[in-house]
Amino acid sequence: MRIGIVGGGQLARMLALAGIPLGIRFSVYDPAPDACASTVADLVNGDFEDLVALKAFAKQCDLVTFDFENVSASALAELVARCPVRPPPLALSTSQDRLKEKALFAALGVPVAPHCAIPGDIPANFDFPAILKTTRFGYDGKGQIGVASRDALDAAHAALRDVPCVLESKVAFERELSIIAVRNMSGDVRCYPLTENVHANGVLALSLAPARVTAALQKQAETIAVRVADALEYVGVFAIEFFDVGGQLVANEMAPRVHNSGHWTIEGAVTSQFENHIRAIAGLPLGDCSARGVSCMLNWVGALPDRAAALTIPGAHWHDYGKQARSGRKVGHMTVVAECRGQLDERVRERLSEFGESGGVLCDLLDLVNLNRTGD
Amino acid sequence: MRIGIVGGGQLARMLALAGIPLGIRFSVYDPAPDACASTVADLVNGDFEDLVALKAFAKQCDLVTFDFENVSASALAELVARCPVRPPPLALSTSQDRLKEKALFAALGVPVAPHCAIPGDIPANFDFPAILKTTRFGYDGKGQIGVASRDALDAAHAALRDVPCVLESKVAFERELSIIAVRNMSGDVRCYPLTENVHANGVLALSLAPARVTAALQKQAETIAVRVADALEYVGVFAIEFFDVGGQLVANEMAPRVHNSGHWTIEGAVTSQFENHIRAIAGLPLGDCSARGVSCMLNWVGALPDRAAALTIPGAHWHDYGKQARSGRKVGHMTVVAECRGQLDERVRERLSEFGESGGVLCDLLDLVNLNRTGD
Repeated sequence: MRIGIVGGGQLARMLALAGIPLGIRFSVYDPAPDACASTVADLVNGDFEDLVALKAFAKQCDLVTFDFENVSASALAELVARCPVRPPPLALSTSQDRLKEKALFAALGVPVAPHCAIPGDIPANFDFPAILKTTRFGYDGKGQIGVASRDALDAAHAALRDVPCVLESKVAFERELSIIAVRNMSGDVRCYPLTENVHANGVLALSLAPARVTAALQKQAETIAVRVADALEYVGVFAIEFFDVGGQLVANEMAPRVHNSGHWTIEGAVTSQFENHIRAIAGLPLGDCSARGVSCMLNWVGALPDRAAALTIPGAHWHDYGKQARSGRKVGHMTVVAECRGQLDERVRERLSEFGESGGVLCDLLDLVNLNRTGD
Repeated sequence: MRIGIVGGGQLARMLALAGIPLGIRFSVYDPAPDACASTVADLVNGDFEDLVALKAFAKQCDLVTFDFENVSASALAELVARCPVRPPPLALSTSQDRLKEKALFAALGVPVAPHCAIPGDIPANFDFPAILKTTRFGYDGKGQIGVASRDALDAAHAALRDVPCVLESKVAFERELSIIAVRNMSGDVRCYPLTENVHANGVLALSLAPARVTAALQKQAETIAVRVADALEYVGVFAIEFFDVGGQLVANEMAPRVHNSGHWTIEGAVTSQFENHIRAIAGLPLGDCSARGVSCMLNWVGALPDRAAALTIPGAHWHDYGKQARSGRKVGHMTVVAECRGQLDERVRERLSEFGESGGVLCDLLDLVNLNRTGD
């Protein structure tokens, strides 16, 4: 079996690394001649909008998936006649449009932040401060801007080139959580434990898993995950990001793919999100999503810190994506696994100072997580 | 950094899968155009005796290692002038020659079975039954034959084409154990927990880890591993196979490479033998060798059983080597990890019957392990 992945970045790379032991081969489709998944997959270069090239790519594959949200959903939908595309393009097109996504959440009774379309009418009772987000093509904090008051809206919209946007009231959340889940073709859904996430400059900086939450909160998240996945007839792994507002989950957005906040599952869960995505789309039995110990995932953004220093930490696992260093670019991550929170704290916090400036930033972020500690 | 691996089989494949996340790229040198490591490494086809081609291969690499014992040690020794070769060719040449290997064990005070060179004099007190083994080029039970009495020796030797052999008294062992260990360039050695191994037709059928042994037996094995590795100024992962004779370890042979009885470490240890080999030869800090739960590794010999049935077992991890099915060939393995022996038994033994004939054989072998149960 050969699986084609549209997009050849680190997610495709980690999907192939997980899928190769299952006896599956991979091709990736990406415009970049140095797409980092090419180390473990056959690379086909092409534009994401080039339907002819995409069809030729699909012809070589037994099924097609994607590692990237901003691929053309309509192009993928056209491939369905040629070979299975999983997850279904409907999931992709829904998550590509913040208004559609919020409409789906709302229709399923999943709480979302107060919001409205821009251009459009702003309800009289709309609460500022708010965030203006482009309806499409946003990721990692790109395509969004804070709006302190109604008066600041026009300037903010102009800064986003007046494209269609969603204006969202800022949610006074205690912390950010995400759930990674997987659904197979029979409709079975398995969920990983919730993950606590900390962002810096709109980009995920670190994740802690399992999150320190009550069983009720975990259940709340799983119920939402099942409802959303069923509505989309989803197949594969997906993530839903939440705000925790006093024990009530407010959905922020979903990602119809393996997710950065699930990277800890490679070493910190019985079956990784990458393997479970492959299992689901290939029609294989789903794997156990239970955590093994407790994990802290640290993202390397811009450049990698010293690998040898990092690898002296017991339970540390290094993931270099094989990408050129560039400001703001995710170039790797490290997961540290420990038996308990205390040991994890020793292993991570006490060693981060050795990681120069980025280590200092991560220390501060870890403190932030601690301040918000609940449900431990 | 690019590491060259001489030999492109499943060990090279699993080395590359472990090393790629560390940011390392791989080339493999193998005569087979379909060498299974080529999925994750650049393949260079060439004969193992072709020194010119091997030198050209080494020139493309920052360092060279091997996944295979029967590569020419003298050819590797010649590469040392060009780039580092780790483990050192001395370790390879020692392990390639059963007489040299036993002489090393004996010189280090490591117990070995009574033995003598054939052709050569047989000591008067030599005990039969014995096993006649070719001095070189034996693996997986190939190149050996049982010898019931002195009268049967000539016929046995003729069956092995009268090549130089070692005649070994059969050791009345309770079970077979192996230790996997890793030594870095500074001389630090780390050992995995002992593994219990069961062979069928000379080929490893299954491994259980950690072995049910006393701390004293583990210590005995570790002392031997350190002594052997230091004597060879070894760098990388190696294995020593033992017979357990009433709590006394008798060394059978060593393998100067990652070893089939260490495959369980991929999911069953904090750091896999594959990652630790790469860490050691690349000059990176060694990883933690502690076990995570208990593991049972089942070898797929000849053909793969039903993958989907296997993957319904919780904690099961599938490893398809991407090789053509062929009688007697190792084509994959599965490791089942559990929290305790009882859970492992439930997960493996109760499900093996679904694996047809090979499952039945494995059930019988598991019973054998149980009969020999000690130190639990």
